[in-house]
Amino acid sequence: MKVTALLDEIAGLGRHDATGGYRRFAWTRADADLREWFASTATGLGLTVTEDRVGNQWAWWGDPDAAVRDHRPGIVTGSHLDSVPDGGAYDGPLGVASSLAAVAGLRASGFVPGRPIGVANFVDEEGARFGVACSGSRLLSGAMTPEHALGLTDGEGLTMAEALIAAGRDPTRVGRDDETLARIGTFVELHLEQGRLLADLDGPTVPVAVGSSIWPHGRWRFDLMGEANHAGTTRFEDRRDPMLDLAALITGARATGAQLGCVATVGKVVVRPNGVNAIPSSVTGWLDARGPVEDDVRRLVPLLEERLGVRATRESFTPATRFDDLLVADLASLLGGVPVIGTGAGHDAGVLATQGVRTAMLFVRNPTGVSHSPAEHVDAADCEAGVGALSAVLRHLAG
Amino acid sequence: MKVTALLDEIAGLGRHDATGGYRRFAWTRADADLREWFASTATGLGLTVTEDRVGNQWAWWGDPDAAVRDHRPGIVTGSHLDSVPDGGAYDGPLGVASSLAAVAGLRASGFVPGRPIGVANFVDEEGARFGVACSGSRLLSGAMTPEHALGLTDGEGLTMAEALIAAGRDPTRVGRDDETLARIGTFVELHLEQGRLLADLDGPTVPVAVGSSIWPHGRWRFDLMGEANHAGTTRFEDRRDPMLDLAALITGARATGAQLGCVATVGKVVVRPNGVNAIPSSVTGWLDARGPVEDDVRRLVPLLEERLGVRATRESFTPATRFDDLLVADLASLLGGVPVIGTGAGHDAGVLATQGVRTAMLFVRNPTGVSHSPAEHVDAADCEAGVGALSAVLRHLAG
Repeated sequence: MKVTALLDEIAGLGRHDATGGYRRFAWTRADADLREWFASTATGLGLTVTEDRVGNQWAWWGDPDAAVRDHRPGIVTGSHLDSVPDGGAYDGPLGVASSLAAVAGLRASGFVPGRPIGVANFVDEEGARFGVACSGSRLLSGAMTPEHALGLTDGEGLTMAEALIAAGRDPTRVGRDDETLARIGTFVELHLEQGRLLADLDGPTVPVAVGSSIWPHGRWRFDLMGEANHAGTTRFEDRRDPMLDLAALITGARATGAQLGCVATVGKVVVRPNGVNAIPSSVTGWLDARGPVEDDVRRLVPLLEERLGVRATRESFTPATRFDDLLVADLASLLGGVPVIGTGAGHDAGVLATQGVRTAMLFVRNPTGVSHSPAEHVDAADCEAGVGALSAVLRHLAG
Repeated sequence: MKVTALLDEIAGLGRHDATGGYRRFAWTRADADLREWFASTATGLGLTVTEDRVGNQWAWWGDPDAAVRDHRPGIVTGSHLDSVPDGGAYDGPLGVASSLAAVAGLRASGFVPGRPIGVANFVDEEGARFGVACSGSRLLSGAMTPEHALGLTDGEGLTMAEALIAAGRDPTRVGRDDETLARIGTFVELHLEQGRLLADLDGPTVPVAVGSSIWPHGRWRFDLMGEANHAGTTRFEDRRDPMLDLAALITGARATGAQLGCVATVGKVVVRPNGVNAIPSSVTGWLDARGPVEDDVRRLVPLLEERLGVRATRESFTPATRFDDLLVADLASLLGGVPVIGTGAGHDAGVLATQGVRTAMLFVRNPTGVSHSPAEHVDAADCEAGVGALSAVLRHLAG
């Protein structure tokens, strides 16, 4: 079972014809189709598919509850199938498809696991619809309360609770799921690298790295208030135009990020009323900021607020996450001394690590470093190298 | 018949509860309700309501075609009932309601017009839905071809032709309407002032001015191209972030406008994909620029393009429009020497003037100067003063 063949099976799901990008948002029709594909593919491999209280899918080889009773909880891999707006084919699906391919290979090889092996498909990792990333793993682990999550709204004003009902689900079931958590002895998520570290390496070609940590990162909202007025009849001196404040936010975020050694990005903007001949009444800009040093990330927004003379609303903040040091070293050694790297991107693996699960990640080489775009890519040979590495890891940990 | 009472009748139509602003866009349900209100109110006054090929509504006192045969074509007033996104209650509706109130008063007074008097309700003056302002009068007068207009799309991707069909209309009928144009001997549009010239006057209070001209104005689109990528994992030096170009456009428009004595505004922005953790693949910003001197307005965008190193697409440009000088002087004198003022806002009156119709405008005092906002306002006494002035004008021109 080839990873590229599995990815081909879902290549048409949630793809936007005009942009060529994927719009696979939580609890939409595309998401339902992807969940259906996951369940039927895993079932076809002889795995037992379950769902937790949140809606994350779990495909098990072996009885995870018997293993919990034996104090030998399972080895879990997997990732997510949702996307950012106009995302690519690999961020998330590569991990899910590689996990299914690895399990298929291990089963075909006659391997007999000493612990159950699970493949997870986490819902809503990107947070594209309701604004909070990793809501599936956050709810599962109790890092986010159901009250908070269910009240989040999408771009249409629909709450997550309403979206769940529209998808035929019961929002009152959503919450921390200790039974499912207990089954996860170790979690290893495979993901395409979101950067060019492997691609830019000197020396022999290395298609896989082990992830050691996730940078501290956060999201802030800047509500910039102005006064709506006619663009043709209002003198500059009579204006309160919040678009000028947006310009200051964009350039200020870049300058302050550069000063502190962080990345800082204004990627989302909402203008009201957004008319060509109307001075906006308000502009909202969202800031995403991350960096290798937590203190620097924490200093960035107060410094920016002071420079701009406006206050931001923090929507989320995740401190630096270190994966399990011993596990990371063990896997790097197992894979022949491959590089050990940190990443600026959040992942369900990071949420689980924060909540005490023994966790690591594998990264697969990305020739351009691009992700969150239709241009993201992994060479077919590197896809298979990723499956090889993940198979070795599962064989090692579940042996 | 009080203007404020007429405006109260439509106060609930197309009003957005959350913002308190009006969303009265062409060929929507709100628009249909407003058209129904216009037709029934005009019919109730004893006027004969017709529609031209474009869908503009005309309410006639007297037979406009008999008057054309007698070479004494009608005196027309009126304005529009549509709005910008989250617009106010007066921009457009004040002119329509004042026209109906003036005609009601003239009829009640026993006045016998020597020419027919018409009240117009132009469709789609603001261009909020399909992006081109004054499409109703432009199509009527042949200033825009039906081929161009019918292919314009709204925010949902629906063409104007499709929107017309959805509203139960026949798009193949749309086009220049010579029969209707021939009926307009003179057009006088009453509008709230979009500025504070009258409000800021020293000396005795003056609630009405005569409009002499419309500033040259245009709209340009800047398509700023970048490279979509992950906001957390892409180093500043590896980015092509078009949001930075947007910031340069916003500040550059303001600076270049100030330099040339024009107003220049970025009021509408579309970011793709508009995700918090995604460096945008592209950002489109629209520039609205106007000024009293046409050469300066024409120089603005080339200068801005040179400064930014990007090319803009011109979506529309309207040269300076002068209303009929003799008519303007006549009306100012009739009204007791009221101020004669230019405006930065486009109007159907400007389109008709450009197409050779004898045209002028009346402006009614606006205490804050705000328009295109729920905050726009005209005092009740000034509304009645506007009706008084318009009644005097109609009595004079149609006497």
